[in-house]
Amino acid sequence: MASVFGGVEGGGTHSKAILLAEDGRILAETDGPSTNHWLVGVDICIETINKMVQNAKTSAGLNPDTPLRSLGMSLSGGEQKDAIEKLIARMKDQFPNLSQHYFITTDAIGAMATASDRGGVVLISGTGSNCKLVNPDGSQIGCGGWGHMMGDEGSAFWIAHLAVKTVFDARDKLATPPHDVTHVRKAMEEYFAVSDLMGMLPHLYRNFQKSHFAGFCKKLAEGAEAGDALCRYVFTQAGRVLAKHVEAVLPAAQEPLLCGDLGLPILCVGSVWKSWELLKPGFTEVLDLAASSDELKGRFRGYSLLSLRQSSALGGASLGAQSLGAVFKMDYAANVDVFYRHSWKSEQCHVQRGDVS
Amino acid sequence: MASVFGGVEGGGTHSKAILLAEDGRILAETDGPSTNHWLVGVDICIETINKMVQNAKTSAGLNPDTPLRSLGMSLSGGEQKDAIEKLIARMKDQFPNLSQHYFITTDAIGAMATASDRGGVVLISGTGSNCKLVNPDGSQIGCGGWGHMMGDEGSAFWIAHLAVKTVFDARDKLATPPHDVTHVRKAMEEYFAVSDLMGMLPHLYRNFQKSHFAGFCKKLAEGAEAGDALCRYVFTQAGRVLAKHVEAVLPAAQEPLLCGDLGLPILCVGSVWKSWELLKPGFTEVLDLAASSDELKGRFRGYSLLSLRQSSALGGASLGAQSLGAVFKMDYAANVDVFYRHSWKSEQCHVQRGDVS
Repeated sequence: MASVFGGVEGGGTHSKAILLAEDGRILAETDGPSTNHWLVGVDICIETINKMVQNAKTSAGLNPDTPLRSLGMSLSGGEQKDAIEKLIARMKDQFPNLSQHYFITTDAIGAMATASDRGGVVLISGTGSNCKLVNPDGSQIGCGGWGHMMGDEGSAFWIAHLAVKTVFDARDKLATPPHDVTHVRKAMEEYFAVSDLMGMLPHLYRNFQKSHFAGFCKKLAEGAEAGDALCRYVFTQAGRVLAKHVEAVLPAAQEPLLCGDLGLPILCVGSVWKSWELLKPGFTEVLDLAASSDELKGRFRGYSLLSLRQSSALGGASLGAQSLGAVFKMDYAANVDVFYRHSWKSEQCHVQRGDVS
Repeated sequence: MASVFGGVEGGGTHSKAILLAEDGRILAETDGPSTNHWLVGVDICIETINKMVQNAKTSAGLNPDTPLRSLGMSLSGGEQKDAIEKLIARMKDQFPNLSQHYFITTDAIGAMATASDRGGVVLISGTGSNCKLVNPDGSQIGCGGWGHMMGDEGSAFWIAHLAVKTVFDARDKLATPPHDVTHVRKAMEEYFAVSDLMGMLPHLYRNFQKSHFAGFCKKLAEGAEAGDALCRYVFTQAGRVLAKHVEAVLPAAQEPLLCGDLGLPILCVGSVWKSWELLKPGFTEVLDLAASSDELKGRFRGYSLLSLRQSSALGGASLGAQSLGAVFKMDYAANVDVFYRHSWKSEQCHVQRGDVS
């Protein structure tokens, strides 16, 4: 099986594994729960990965005891060097038949490697959030991605938390809610199966599960679509703060990133983007302001929002193969959709158009 | 030992136990670590309480196998009815010789019972924060006290978190810091023994200990006293939000609470109050504004800040005894110090002065 490459997409709620042949054909795909080691711990993380990949081998008709050539993992929580080295060491030790070689990168870089080899911005809003700008020369700059204790702004967790906090503060009279909280309070009591605020404590502490807490965001999206003002408000706020992440990394963008036909390509990853229409008012407002700021005036001509048609396990697999010197052909254009375009200027760029697609 | 009463003060970082004779004499006092069951879990909580009380029995020359008459516990995290019933059931089951009778209340109510039987506001800022207004007729209204996932505004944890978050956001360019972050970043790297922001992740997740994280507040107080602007800023913000808690409960205050010689008595509990001079600018500013608001105009004439000279284990013991019909004499005046007074009006109240001391 020296010619089979594996890839993993590890999220805060769901994960995916894929197996690829040398020619890029997908041999099998499997699903699993969260593999964010900060959330579920190292043991569950590597066991889940092993299980998904071994199941994929079986479903592709391969011998599970024959190691893959490489396993490239695109993991939420895959940033800290020490931590990922430990993960790899544990996998080698515990699952000697899983793969010959391992590679771990962040969910952001794995997503980018699925969409393009020319760079752009990756803006993740799933269970958690993160933003990474990758320049054409490979240099990177990030904003966020520190998890729910130190950020996660604009993520499903953050949106759910903002809504719940608004209910708590209104009850306490600590802050005046921007809109009536009745609908959100009822939806919260229903989703968490509680009858009062005190009942929320186990959900916040003893039985805290980020993924479950973040799941409340879906109910808020339903409320927003039905017209509830507070539900709409929390998504507008999320759109605003997600755009703030883009604004934070923008000054580091090299010219070719800003000069393609799409303007700055922003790859949007994570299930919160399903609610783009709800995020839009806040998101576009912040980037409109940024475009007219002194720092960016003239440079930031427009942007496009892209979504992936393939799991970022594909990018993970590709990076894993590359790290061994092996390469399989990626049809980047087939892996993305453009779902929104915005441009302020039509003037000619200083570099040739079409440099970045 | 039917005539010996026990009391416990349970904090997010430290705890205390005391034993009292029927005449109110203190027979023994012991110390221990956190007994907040949300933070340390039920097992450690009840084991720590048992150990402190049994040690106190021994140090008072009493037989540890003879149960106390009652054990009244004033616990941070002691609010949720279901949870405290479970705690008591577990203690009865696991430590049959500890006490004949058990009583649990919150840290706020235990502190109030140490200071007065006429009510007032308790404003806690220790590891966590909480605010409770107790009226002369016993009715209560609270604000906050939901822990670090849903509030704790103005607490040591919150102050430490605000400072660290300011460093993260400045590094990410997600927000412009109100002051230079150099001193706070260095102090953070020193206190947490990390060399970069990534190193903070284990402190926020895998090895998170609220009490240790909150301990960084002390370093910030030292920085503020040495004149660092960002350190001073986080304490001013804490003062502001602590006063917001008072403002939130104020409209529910019955007239006698507002008409005593001290104005509204605010019992300040927790180690953050050691930095009162740093909290003061924000705290007084918010209450000055509140006093001139339409809702409170004329009613809110002044306030006094009080601190306890005794552990609120004393109030816990007293409430535990009361719940059995037993009462020991409390010299409330001897249990408090007034450390700050503020008044805007000297007009006569509508009720007789001196009703509340």
